[in-house]
Amino acid sequence: MNIPASDKKRIVIIGGGFAGLTLGKKLRKSDYQVVLLDRNNFHTFQPLLYQVATAGLEPDSITYPIRKVFQKYPDFYFRMAEVQHVNTTDRIVNTNLGELEYDYLVIATGAQSNFFGNSQVEDYSMPMKSIRDALDLRSLLLQNFEDALVTDSIEEREKLMNVVIVGAGPTGVELAGALAELKARVLPSDYPDLDMSRMKIRLLDGADKVLPAMSGAASEESLHYLEKLGVEVQLGVFVENYDGHYIHTNQGKIAARTLIWSAGVLGNPVEGIPLGTVDQQAKANRYEIDEYFRVKGIENVFAIGDVASMVNEDLPAGHPMLASVACQQGVYLARNLRRLSEEREFVPFKYQDKGSLATVGTNKAVADLPGFKTQGMLAWYIWMFVHLFLLIGFRNRLVAFMNWVWAYITYDTGVRLIIRPFQRRE
Amino acid sequence: MNIPASDKKRIVIIGGGFAGLTLGKKLRKSDYQVVLLDRNNFHTFQPLLYQVATAGLEPDSITYPIRKVFQKYPDFYFRMAEVQHVNTTDRIVNTNLGELEYDYLVIATGAQSNFFGNSQVEDYSMPMKSIRDALDLRSLLLQNFEDALVTDSIEEREKLMNVVIVGAGPTGVELAGALAELKARVLPSDYPDLDMSRMKIRLLDGADKVLPAMSGAASEESLHYLEKLGVEVQLGVFVENYDGHYIHTNQGKIAARTLIWSAGVLGNPVEGIPLGTVDQQAKANRYEIDEYFRVKGIENVFAIGDVASMVNEDLPAGHPMLASVACQQGVYLARNLRRLSEEREFVPFKYQDKGSLATVGTNKAVADLPGFKTQGMLAWYIWMFVHLFLLIGFRNRLVAFMNWVWAYITYDTGVRLIIRPFQRRE
Repeated sequence: MNIPASDKKRIVIIGGGFAGLTLGKKLRKSDYQVVLLDRNNFHTFQPLLYQVATAGLEPDSITYPIRKVFQKYPDFYFRMAEVQHVNTTDRIVNTNLGELEYDYLVIATGAQSNFFGNSQVEDYSMPMKSIRDALDLRSLLLQNFEDALVTDSIEEREKLMNVVIVGAGPTGVELAGALAELKARVLPSDYPDLDMSRMKIRLLDGADKVLPAMSGAASEESLHYLEKLGVEVQLGVFVENYDGHYIHTNQGKIAARTLIWSAGVLGNPVEGIPLGTVDQQAKANRYEIDEYFRVKGIENVFAIGDVASMVNEDLPAGHPMLASVACQQGVYLARNLRRLSEEREFVPFKYQDKGSLATVGTNKAVADLPGFKTQGMLAWYIWMFVHLFLLIGFRNRLVAFMNWVWAYITYDTGVRLIIRPFQRRE
Repeated sequence: MNIPASDKKRIVIIGGGFAGLTLGKKLRKSDYQVVLLDRNNFHTFQPLLYQVATAGLEPDSITYPIRKVFQKYPDFYFRMAEVQHVNTTDRIVNTNLGELEYDYLVIATGAQSNFFGNSQVEDYSMPMKSIRDALDLRSLLLQNFEDALVTDSIEEREKLMNVVIVGAGPTGVELAGALAELKARVLPSDYPDLDMSRMKIRLLDGADKVLPAMSGAASEESLHYLEKLGVEVQLGVFVENYDGHYIHTNQGKIAARTLIWSAGVLGNPVEGIPLGTVDQQAKANRYEIDEYFRVKGIENVFAIGDVASMVNEDLPAGHPMLASVACQQGVYLARNLRRLSEEREFVPFKYQDKGSLATVGTNKAVADLPGFKTQGMLAWYIWMFVHLFLLIGFRNRLVAFMNWVWAYITYDTGVRLIIRPFQRRE
């Protein structure tokens, strides 16, 4: 793959998400040659994808060129490559750009949508995992409104305006809230001929509450916010099928041309490195790792981030699949790899719970923080502050930051653009 | 097409470019019902497309949702539609969304690339007329650099890095300059493993000078700037063919995987409304119009902007195809249509030459203004000021303006993103 030979040992990192990117940064000027592989030439700030999908932020605000991050890093190589297979015996990564040998391999491939084996739902619903997914959803929502304007059938018009979101985790809740604000603030001016009261935003989940991973107070209050914004939350509902027009559930049929799938994720395992056998983990396609991030049973291979699951008595399902966990793991693994080169012992990962946050709308957020829980305006300010802080570190420019605040607060961004129309399956 | 009936006469405008958009704005609160049709839901600020293509500006900075422009306009309707045919006898526009009757029709469909009938060049070269074209070019340029990194063949690497631009009008000159600055300022840090001196940027034209429509001083000085920036300008060169690898010209063969076509434009005529018969105009596919923008020989049909050509003794080829001409024509036609509703006589179009500007690089621009001509830093400041002024009117927000200045000056925008890889024909 045209990577220069080096006296140093070579670490190959697969994936430039939060875990892989943090690891790469923390290995600057280490005793290793580092090669980072990603199928894209940019990092995506996934927690804000829902803002791009709802035309609140421009895609460039939440993506960042990986090469720009690593400019001037010595003995560091980025390659935009698709990993096809890993041969752990010979320590070779096979990619669409050729072979690459490694001394240490780090799998940081993240997660994908989990459709629970329902291929029809997969074919007709909109996932929310990549910037392309978010742009497709933005196009589809706007195309549907354009189509709703010109149809003579009231039934068809409602189907085009309706949006159903499946999965009431953070992505589903934040998306539902953002759509409700779009409906209230922006769409009536853009589409004065349409009767907005006919547009229904529904959030479905099989569980009996929203944000099930958060505290009871957070669940209750976010449900309250969603209802206040006009989102119809339906719990205990399981989607059975979708044909692009009707969603069939255990509680009946819903007409909608847009179904957004945020009902669960699966790790992205790499061909050639088998998953572990622990039940819980096999279900989510995550690699079982020990407290030093070593993939169980395979030499010199580590896994961090969403694709890895560090199971123990306290954590039967591993750590939550969050950006903050991925970043912490990247930091720890870099420390351990540096210790390895110094022939010092590994230190075990100590997860620091930084809490979780979700925002439903302006002044409407919920926060479960290590010291305290809060909901409402304070939580919203915390959410804003945390995300702006993360984004400014990531974007590193004042102007982008201001642009972002302005865009986020006013929705006056002018990004309601159908740049590439989405080709719907008919 | 679901446009409410009205007592007022209906004006249908085809095209939301500078001409159509200006006309629509100036018809606010007129005695007409106005329907604006465009195939996109956004306006594109075409003079800055080259900045998007060279990863200097994000696409959202130069596009603007048409619905946002016309929010709260009474009796105004926008439809995202593709016009298929016009029946001038029954005064009906046929579109993919159905039929639409008009009392007055305005054709403001702009221009397309002119490949002079060479379909192979059309298939393999990159046009520069839409935001999608610009994004495709951005992707292709970056993909080529990624590929150049991993090839073992020096010949192939040079072919991937080389860029050839055909057509030394404003688009070609500005693009060549922006690419040269990208090569000098950004690419060496992003691709430290590549020998940038192997990248050749060539600008070809059949004429004997660059910017032939501008003054002799502007032509000479811009040629000088281009050469200073390392662009190889080759004049008197005609492209005969291109197969995606080699450009065949009357002066030999050039190896390059990227050929950008900015060699000429043709009007976008509308099916059902024949072009005139004047030679000069037939060549450029533009409608012959009289001094009131009436398409010759057809009742109640007007044409403005690039698709229209107002030929007279002084202007054998019509007005130049520039944004400033299109805007002025939109203003005049709105005035005449208002006079029509008041049963007053039309006023003839008086073109005010606002001069022309082209920028090659930082501090390197040329300006032919009504009172004086200048080149260099002053011209560059004028160029900046004029474009920022136009863009701020268009974007209408201070933050975007600052972002834009920052982006433009520093190139530190982080938009070197391959969001949708370009699928090259092989």
